[in-house]
Amino acid sequence: MSDTKKDLAIVLASGGLDSAVCLAEATLQYDVALLHVNYGQRTEARELHAFHTLADHYEIKQRLVVDISYLKEIGGSSLVDESMAVETGLPQDGAVVPSTYVPFRNAHILCVGVSWGEVIGARGLFIGAVEEDGSGYPDCRQDFYDKFSAAADAGTKPDTKVLIHTPLIRMNKKSIVLRGVELDAPLHLTWSCYTQSEKACGVCESCLLRLRGFEAAGVVDPIPYD
Amino acid sequence: MSDTKKDLAIVLASGGLDSAVCLAEATLQYDVALLHVNYGQRTEARELHAFHTLADHYEIKQRLVVDISYLKEIGGSSLVDESMAVETGLPQDGAVVPSTYVPFRNAHILCVGVSWGEVIGARGLFIGAVEEDGSGYPDCRQDFYDKFSAAADAGTKPDTKVLIHTPLIRMNKKSIVLRGVELDAPLHLTWSCYTQSEKACGVCESCLLRLRGFEAAGVVDPIPYD
Repeated sequence: MSDTKKDLAIVLASGGLDSAVCLAEATLQYDVALLHVNYGQRTEARELHAFHTLADHYEIKQRLVVDISYLKEIGGSSLVDESMAVETGLPQDGAVVPSTYVPFRNAHILCVGVSWGEVIGARGLFIGAVEEDGSGYPDCRQDFYDKFSAAADAGTKPDTKVLIHTPLIRMNKKSIVLRGVELDAPLHLTWSCYTQSEKACGVCESCLLRLRGFEAAGVVDPIPYD
Repeated sequence: MSDTKKDLAIVLASGGLDSAVCLAEATLQYDVALLHVNYGQRTEARELHAFHTLADHYEIKQRLVVDISYLKEIGGSSLVDESMAVETGLPQDGAVVPSTYVPFRNAHILCVGVSWGEVIGARGLFIGAVEEDGSGYPDCRQDFYDKFSAAADAGTKPDTKVLIHTPLIRMNKKSIVLRGVELDAPLHLTWSCYTQSEKACGVCESCLLRLRGFEAAGVVDPIPYD
């Protein structure tokens, strides 16, 4: 083994802005295996396309796409239940958890990463969750990741150490955009819109958070909007 | 709402001995919704049959069967990878984790239970995991359940409280059989064998643990063996 051999880490990549910047961070220190999880969301085909173009950009060979669309069957979220409306507008401070929250979704995604990591010998698992400037989802809080990390350590083999990294958790969208530009992350390949796949809608909460971030950073968002 | 209205709990039921006794315990205090998870295991069709006959026995209407057979794609276990041999014989004290361990599997199953529980308003989630007299799987330890429970509380909405119950965790197979008999659990409807679906093989570790338990309890195992 050469001295320059890096440890392996798994990066969870939805294909959005945050996961692209998270991926760029991970590549600084790790060899990366890329994981995408399809949970029956409305714009899955577009997200998957973004995932593969991001993986191509970083020349990542180890890719896994996993279907957890049983979450659609469980329901309880406008992101997977088309009979519920996706809220428009930005999340309000202190407001209830938005309808787009998919119950405990990120725990399912982390589980896939930990299982895969245990099999392929990964030492890290990166997720681009954002707490401060996010949508108020309970499974985007650092406290949740700390506790899940402890559970993952207790529930896997003694020599398995899949440490969970949340490099964006305390950042706001402005700093995420700026960090992405600094790391030369291919932001033009990302997709964030919750409802559209050709041109981003520009009005769902995900689009608005993204647009606000680019604007605050003084950077032009390179993807097309309606 | 009548005074006798019970809280709702989800019981995870593989269809085996342990989950049947766990289900019998849960029905003492809760209205039950029954959850079965298919993860690409060899004897899934037989397990699913056992699940439904158990649910029929307890007249449980709310049932959910979820497919997480992506675990088969991740591999790393003889229970889902048919190119690996299923060990025979009883687990040895201090031995390495057996090949039948499915990496972090129980965490995936708990996630499904917590998500469903958050949507249907369950206050409990029962799993028939056994630590002391089990197979040495890391995701069968009480420490793991305690830590996962904390993660579930942190990663769900403030008013969601899906408490994880592991009533069998400190029991050995003998006491599980005796408790099952005491609670009149329908042990004849259960299935534990890892490899066969018509008659149990009697030699895989799951069969041996089960048979040893019945023998120690002085109870005749009502299912057919080869």
